[in-house]
Order: sequence, then C-alpha cells, then structure tokens
Amino acid sequence: MKIGFIGVGLMGGPMAHNLLKAGYELKVFDLVPALLKPLIQDGAIAVDNARLAIEGVDCLITMLPASEHVLSLYLDEEALLEHIDPKTLVIDCSTIAPDVTKIVAGAAAKQGITMLDAPVSGGTKGAKDGTLTFIVGGSAAGFEAAQPVLSAMGKNILHAGDHGAGQMAKICNNMLLAIHMAGTAEAIQLGVNNGLDPKVLSDIMVQSSGRNWSLELYNPYPGVMEAVPASKAYQGGFKVNLMVKDLGLSQQAALLSCSSTPLGALARNLFNLHAAQGSEKLDFSSIQQFYKPK
Amino acid sequence: MKIGFIGVGLMGGPMAHNLLKAGYELKVFDLVPALLKPLIQDGAIAVDNARLAIEGVDCLITMLPASEHVLSLYLDEEALLEHIDPKTLVIDCSTIAPDVTKIVAGAAAKQGITMLDAPVSGGTKGAKDGTLTFIVGGSAAGFEAAQPVLSAMGKNILHAGDHGAGQMAKICNNMLLAIHMAGTAEAIQLGVNNGLDPKVLSDIMVQSSGRNWSLELYNPYPGVMEAVPASKAYQGGFKVNLMVKDLGLSQQAALLSCSSTPLGALARNLFNLHAAQGSEKLDFSSIQQFYKPK
Amino acid sequence: MKIGFIGVGLMGGPMAHNLLKAGYELKVFDLVPALLKPLIQDGAIAVDNARLAIEGVDCLITMLPASEHVLSLYLDEEALLEHIDPKTLVIDCSTIAPDVTKIVAGAAAKQGITMLDAPVSGGTKGAKDGTLTFIVGGSAAGFEAAQPVLSAMGKNILHAGDHGAGQMAKICNNMLLAIHMAGTAEAIQLGVNNGLDPKVLSDIMVQSSGRNWSLELYNPYPGVMEAVPASKAYQGGFKVNLMVKDLGLSQQAALLSCSSTPLGALARNLFNLHAAQGSEKLDFSSIQQFYKPK
Amino acid sequence: MKIGFIGVGLMGGPMAHNLLKAGYELKVFDLVPALLKPLIQDGAIAVDNARLAIEGVDCLITMLPASEHVLSLYLDEEALLEHIDPKTLVIDCSTIAPDVTKIVAGAAAKQGITMLDAPVSGGTKGAKDGTLTFIVGGSAAGFEAAQPVLSAMGKNILHAGDHGAGQMAKICNNMLLAIHMAGTAEAIQLGVNNGLDPKVLSDIMVQSSGRNWSLELYNPYPGVMEAVPASKAYQGGFKVNLMVKDLGLSQQAALLSCSSTPLGALARNLFNLHAAQGSEKLDFSSIQQFYKPK
Repeated sequence: MKIGFIGVGLMGGPMAHNLLKAGYELKVFDLVPALLKPLIQDGAIAVDNARLAIEGVDCLITMLPASEHVLSLYLDEEALLEHIDPKTLVIDCSTIAPDVTKIVAGAAAKQGITMLDAPVSGGTKGAKDGTLTFIVGGSAAGFEAAQPVLSAMGKNILHAGDHGAGQMAKICNNMLLAIHMAGTAEAIQLGVNNGLDPKVLSDIMVQSSGRNWSLELYNPYPGVMEAVPASKAYQGGFKVNLMVKDLGLSQQAALLSCSSTPLGALARNLFNLHAAQGSEKLDFSSIQQFYKPK
Repeated sequence: MKIGFIGVGLMGGPMAHNLLKAGYELKVFDLVPALLKPLIQDGAIAVDNARLAIEGVDCLITMLPASEHVLSLYLDEEALLEHIDPKTLVIDCSTIAPDVTKIVAGAAAKQGITMLDAPVSGGTKGAKDGTLTFIVGGSAAGFEAAQPVLSAMGKNILHAGDHGAGQMAKICNNMLLAIHMAGTAEAIQLGVNNGLDPKVLSDIMVQSSGRNWSLELYNPYPGVMEAVPASKAYQGGFKVNLMVKDLGLSQQAALLSCSSTPLGALARNLFNLHAAQGSEKLDFSSIQQFYKPK
Repeated sequence: MKIGFIGVGLMGGPMAHNLLKAGYELKVFDLVPALLKPLIQDGAIAVDNARLAIEGVDCLITMLPASEHVLSLYLDEEALLEHIDPKTLVIDCSTIAPDVTKIVAGAAAKQGITMLDAPVSGGTKGAKDGTLTFIVGGSAAGFEAAQPVLSAMGKNILHAGDHGAGQMAKICNNMLLAIHMAGTAEAIQLGVNNGLDPKVLSDIMVQSSGRNWSLELYNPYPGVMEAVPASKAYQGGFKVNLMVKDLGLSQQAALLSCSSTPLGALARNLFNLHAAQGSEKLDFSSIQQFYKPK
Repeated sequence: MKIGFIGVGLMGGPMAHNLLKAGYELKVFDLVPALLKPLIQDGAIAVDNARLAIEGVDCLITMLPASEHVLSLYLDEEALLEHIDPKTLVIDCSTIAPDVTKIVAGAAAKQGITMLDAPVSGGTKGAKDGTLTFIVGGSAAGFEAAQPVLSAMGKNILHAGDHGAGQMAKICNNMLLAIHMAGTAEAIQLGVNNGLDPKVLSDIMVQSSGRNWSLELYNPYPGVMEAVPASKAYQGGFKVNLMVKDLGLSQQAALLSCSSTPLGALARNLFNLHAAQGSEKLDFSSIQQFYKPK
C-alpha cells in the first residue's frame, strides 16, 4: 500500500517515520524541503509539489498547521481534490475548525472521495512513540479502512461521528483539558498561599473528587512530579500558543452554534494573557506561573 | 473508649451509627431531639445539652452546618472549650472557614486541648457506608490518635498539615471539583450543540486528556451513565446549595490570602446563578441544565 | 441624486423613508416584497431584484442582517460588485464582521468602486427619528461624499478609519456597552440584595465614578427610570439576540487578532445564557432579571 | 464646635486641614506621630492616645485603613464606644465591610450614640481640594447633623440609607467602576489590535452607548487624554491595591448575601493578577497594561 504524506514537521515527521517502519511505501512533500531529508534516508520518496504526492497512492495523509492551509491545499490554490483519484482514502490529521473540515469533506464527497478528519492528541512524544490518539470523523466504512494506517502511528483510534466530528471532539476535549489544567493550578496556588504543601495537597486531591488528568499525570506545580514539564522549567510538552489555538477553535465553534462556554472562554483568555506575557513557547502547564504572586 | 458526638443530622447521624457499630460508647446531642431517637435505639446515650456531651468522654466529635455554629459552640454561647477535659481529643468534622478553624484550634491549644479539623468528603452515601474521606488538619500526634475513631467512619484518612489545613485542602479540592464538573458540562453541551453524541464524546474524552472525576464517575449529562444523579433527574447526591457554600469558603480564603482564582470565582457565580433559578436542592451535576438551551 | 436601497426591514425601512423625506429618488429592493409597499406609497420605485436596484443610481445603500448576506449579495450569488458602475458610492450599513467588510471593500476597490462600511447605532427609534449614529470606515474622500446622504438619516457621522474600521469601532463600542449594562445590573442587584433602594443607589452611582450610559440613560432595574424598557417589561429597545450577535462579532475579532477580552467574553456568555432561557426577544437591559434570585 | 479626628494619613490629613480651615477646633490623633506635626502648625491640638481625642468634643471623625482597625478602635482593644459621650456625633469615614459597620453602629446605638458610616470617593486630590463625595449610611437625623462638618470636606453629601448603606453603596459603585475601567481598557486594546487609533476610537465611544466615567474622564490608554494617570506613567491617582481592597469588600458582600457578581468577581481577579505582577502601586487605570501584548 502506497501513502502520500504532506506536511512532515514536528508532528508529521515522526508520524511518517512510523509509517515507513510499518512497511508502507511513502511519497512525502513539505514546503520546507529540509524536513524531507531524514525521511528520504529512511526510504521515503520526496516529491517536488503537492500534486505529485497524490499520484498513484492508495491513501493521502495531511498534517498542516491551520484551517487556511487545509483550505488552500485541497480547495483553493492547490485544488488537490480535483486531482485525487476517488479510490484514494484521504485522511487529514490537522487540527482545524470543524466547519472548515465539513466544507472540505463535502467537496471531497462530491468527487466520490472518502475523506476523514483525524486530529491527534499525544504531542510530539506520542508521534515519535507511535502512541498517538486519533479522534476520527467520517463514515464508518472510512473509519474501518483507515484502521491499519492509523494503528501504525497511534494506540487509540476513536470514532467520534460523521465529518467534522473528529475535530469537534478534539476541540471539546482540549477545552476541558485547559479548564482543568488552569483550575488545578488555581487550586494548588490557593492552597500554597494558605500554607499547604503543594505535594501533600496534590496527593489529597488526586485521591478525592478533584482528581483529573492534569493533577494525576501532568502536575503544573514545579517539583511535585518528576519528569513533567513543570519540573523542567516548563520546557517540552504542549506549548501555550498551541493551546491558545485550540481554545480559539472551541470558541469559534461556540459562537457558530450559539453555545455558552463561560469557563472555556475565560480559560482561552487566561492562556492568551499568559502567552502575551512572553510564555507562548513554554509548556501549557506554565499557567501555574500566571497565578503565582511575583 | 467513650465518645461525645454533637450534631447528628444527615451526615453526623450515620457517622455516629458507624461508631456504635464499631463498639464505641456514645453520648449524643443535637438541637433537634428527634434526630437522637434512632441512635438511642442503637445504644447511644442521649443528653440534653452540649455540656453534658463532653462529660467523661475520651473524644468529642462535632459535625455542624457552618462557621457560626462552630464558633458559637466552642467559644461564644456554649463556650465548650472552657469545660472540656484537656485529655479529650476534639475532632471537628464540620466544613467551615479555615481561619475560623484556626481561631478555635488556637483557643483549644491554650487550654491544652488537642483539636483536629477533619472535614469529610463522600456525601451521605459515604457516611452510611463508612467510606468517607477525612482530610485532617492538626498535629501529627493528634492525627495518629484519631486514626482508630476516624477509621470506623471512613476509608481514607489523609493528613493535610497543621490546624486549618484540613479545611483548606477540602476547600481547594471542592473548588477544583466544581470547575471540572461545570467544565465537563460545558464541553459536553458544546459537543451536543454541534451534533456529537454525548456518550460517544464522553467516552472519547475519558480516554483522552480531558479525563476527570466528574467525567469518569459522575457524568452530568442525562443517560450517559447509569446510577448517577444525572440519570435520576438530579435527585440525591451533593446538592447545589452545598457546593455554593463550599465555593463561598474557597472565595473567602482567596480574598483573605490575596489569591487569584478567576475560574473558581466564575464557578461560584455559575453555581449561584443556577441555585437562584430554583435548583438549589438538585444534585450539583445539574449545572448541565444551566448550559442547555431551553 | 438617485439612491438604490437594498434591505428595508426594521432598520432599513425607516432609514429609506427619511431619504425620501429629504428629497432623494429611491429604488428599493427586499427579499420580502411586503416591506416595499409603504415605501412605494411614499414615492419609492420598487424593483424585482438586487441588480435592478443598482441601475442608474449615484449611491447604493445596503442594510442586511449578517456577514453571509453581505458576502452573498456583493460577491457570491448576486455578485453585485461585477455590475455596479464605478461612479456609484456604495455604503453598507449592515453590522458584520470587520474581516468580511475588508474582503468586500477590497473587491470593490479592484473594480474602482468607492465603498464605505457605515454600521449604525441608535436602534429602530433612531432610524425613525433620523437620529442614528453612523460609524464609518473607508477613505476620507468617501466619507466626505457620503455626508449629505448619511445626514438625512442620522445625527452623528463619525469617521473611524479605513475599510472595516467602522465595523470594528461599533463592535468595540457594543462590547463595552454590554459590559457596563451587565455590570450595572450586577451592582444594583448586589445593593438591593443588601437592603439598598435601587433608585437611591442608582442616583448615588450616577453622581460618582460608577457613572455610565446604561446607568444614566437606560437603567435596567424596573421602576428606577420612566420610559426605558426596564419599566415596560423590557419590551422594545435593543433585543438580547442582537446584542448576542454583536458580542459574537467582538469575540470573533478578538480570536482573529489574538486579543484578550475576558470581560467581553464573559459578557457574551452571560447574554447568551440569558437568551437561551427564553429572553432573546426582550430588550438587552433584561439582563437584570438574570441576576435576580427567583 | 470641637471635633476629634483619628487617623490623619494620606486621606485623613488633608480632610483635617479643611476642617481647620473652616474654623473647627480639632483634637487629632494618629499611631504615627509624625503625621500630626503639619496639623499642629495649622492649629490642631495633638493628643497622645485615642481616648484623649474624644474628650470634650461634639463630633468624632475616624479615617482608618480597614475593618480590623475600626473594630479594634471602637469595640475591642481601645473600646472607645464605652467612653464616648452619647451627645457626640460619630462619623466613620473609613471604607470597610458593611457588616462590620453594622456591628459597630449597632453597639453605638446601644450606648445611645449616633453613628454614621461615611466612606468617601474622590481620592487624595478630592481630600485636598475639599471636593470629596461622602456616601452616608445612618439615620436621617444623623445625616442632617453631619451636613456642616462633611460640607467642610466635600462637595457631594449623599444619603444611601441606614447603617452600613454608605459602605454598601460605595462598594457597589467601586465594583462598577472597576468593571467599566477594565472593560474600557479591553475595548480600546481590541480596537488598537485591529488597527484603530485609540484616540479616534475613544472619541467615537464617548459619543456612543459605550460612554462611561472611565472613558470620559480617566482614559486608561496612554496619550489619549492629558493630565490623567495614563499619560503620566500611571503615577498618582487611585492605586491598584486599593481597588483590589474595594473589590474584595464587594465580593465579601456578595458571598454574605448570596449574590451573583460574575463580572465583579472576574474584575477582582484581573486587578489582583495585575497587582501580583508588580503593579499594586500604580494607578488602577494601568489595567490597560495587563491587556497589552508584550
């Protein structure tokens, strides 16, 4: 089975490596040619433009930064959808606005092309280790067909519903993540400001109803947990500006659907204020610093 | 070992029963005499006023509604601290303001009395089943001494630190709980408003970084989980007005310590608005209804 | 001078009447033909489609509900810009997203057409009385040229800057209006809940630093001021769902420009929650009811 | 008429000077003796302790930093109420918690003493110029009696209601002030981030429904207005930490009265976060900097 892969940066790069490891033939393209070199060494065929990446492949995977790149590639400037063989399974792993996903997937459907949205969670570490979670939107048949390919790059392959549902579920998840991460930071700082030990308090809450993923696996207070970004000066991990982007997508979706998300909206603003203070490249658990008296 | 127990309502009642079951001799008092009857049937000795409840006991346990009752009992009107034998171990299980706890415990210390704050979590069900969590503030020696008694009523006995630390840790925990419960309701409603199935979305988030206690054990969306309040018209459980009280304590503590808790403050207001719309007696996961378009 | 006018609903209708009164010849079009009748009686010429409304006119005015209608009319379905004589001055009075305004005005400029965005404030009353405020974006020359026409419909004609600046300034203004209206309601309710008289409190604040447009001219508490919506069961005025729309535009602009608007985001959510409880057709000062214990 | 004056710091000092200017005989006391010197030069009699300040006076005025000082002076340590001649009119100008005011005024009433709460607005400039606003709580008779004295120090003397109503009205006002100041900063920054000129935008909003005291008299954006703190590096004016204190009082009152103040609570947290970043001594309009991308 031959796969075309467009967008081989921080996430797409290691994902493509895992496909090569799993024995797939790969045609790869990126606007930054330097990114292609390590993949060529591992056996991928590098091509010079997006259109060459779709020739003769059974599956196309794209991993792009934002909605505008996906629109541009599939519909506008590159208009790839007009050139893709309808038998090609198209999987867009970018995290973008669900309504943009629906537009692109709708256009694909008109050409008889099966398209899936399959945004990932798990970060660069998950991409390298092949332990990503894929949250997939699209038909049941498409979801079935994508299993082998996605399994080569991830551990959990979850079906959220029809086109755009993968994006939507990821956005909901990341909004909730931002809320409990900031909430966890707030609760710990409140305790510390009142004389509690952050580790003792974290241990108590993790055994109580305050328990959540941030508290249990990603404690934002420096020194409470080893090997998390908080104990490494907030280096690595999931950057603040990426969380701001995902929170923006959730607020965009809330506006379009007349939904009320007061905590989500506040979380977006807290992370955005934190980013604007110069923290956009730190791990998102650095929101702890935002709460800390200077 | 003889125990005095003051305040045998919804929580204190079943807690006292469990002490009787464990073989302790009990003197019980409550301002509402009717509450004493079932305990008398199980072997407790009912007394006519608070002062009689402390005569000849090795341990005194109190379970009162709010800060003012604790102040009144120990310091002001009843001035119990002036009459307690210094050898008596005093355990206040009420959930009250940490600064009030410190005042009372400080006054106790002046009389040579060992006092602990030991607020509980686990609700009426935990009180009945003897599976409460006690979050304890006070000396290490006091914490040791209280183990057998508390173990007769609960499963987890956690030491948070010095006087008031038990209250403070509980307040932090419940603020975080309120944040992730409301955040979970918001995220699910956002998904539902965009066409996702609440059960599918919940399943995806519980396997992802959005995971938290509310999502995993107490899903607020009707029909997603069996046997939780959301699937029983939000009856039973932890009532909205009690959550509003605990959130008030967290905000009080934030004001006194100059802490910033934007999400906690917003959560307090959301639950308070929800309560003011007539929902104060529903389970707190009914915040889901607050987000639902009517 | 001949004017084409497209969109003669609640706002556009009375605006067109005022142009007729001022002596302008008018060609009018609306998708709802019934709206055209009263204008025909006053001397307007009704036409059957949008393209006829631009024939032989010196100026085109459009007043449409939302971004998608403006896009559709000027660029997509009707593609009016391809047919407008470059000498025609085009004024869009719709309140829409600034980035959409820029797209349309940019396309107009390519055709050599002078276009202005001129969203209004003042509501249906201002439209009838000819006392609207126009907040105008576009070139200084265009702004000059539009003065006579806009003066026939409004009292204040303000120049905010280049294309889109009119929309942007209106959005900022209405976000601030929503914040101080909700803030005023909150402050008065806090006072009332603590025993203050709403009129006495309002009088004190209007003489102090709490003073703002909502408090001074549009008091949201029933009975404090005569002749405002609050004293007429919140009928008439500026409806909640229109405020929710404008707050949505402000949040959209905040997301696109990476701006932090925590209070604006919260205000949008409070008005949206209020609307979802069945108040979308009430005047926006009914947010007072949202704060009132039931 | 003889007046005792306790607390002659930044606010109390100039207020006492104005009383001297108006011809009143003054006995003054402060825990910081150095503060008494300039008043002695102007004819005041300095005394060595609080109790001497109440001897033989017709009126006592106190201007203290916070609730605990007022409690300590009148009820606890100094227990001044036990020594004040019932014919003395007692006016507390401190800004403190309304419930503390009620406790003290209640105790005064038991001694037959007429007491008023009369917190001020207008800042140190208003104190010097004798243009303060007094927001007064207490009986109508007391309010009448206090007119001449208060008029010597201020311009507006407003009666808010019974004991504590002065405090409550001031708290409501300052909460609303904080909301529209932060809201104004947010709206201007949103406009600036989208290319608007801050002065043009401010001018438009001040002529529109966004108008408010902050925008009109105290524009927070540097350079828009002359002679305001924003154009003097946020020096002088009303300091951030004092606004945080007043917002704390409003939140305290909201908690005690089960009121919902989501915008007020958020404003308190925004100003507190701003203070914690090292801005507590800047004028409160410096909240503009909090919104500005760095």
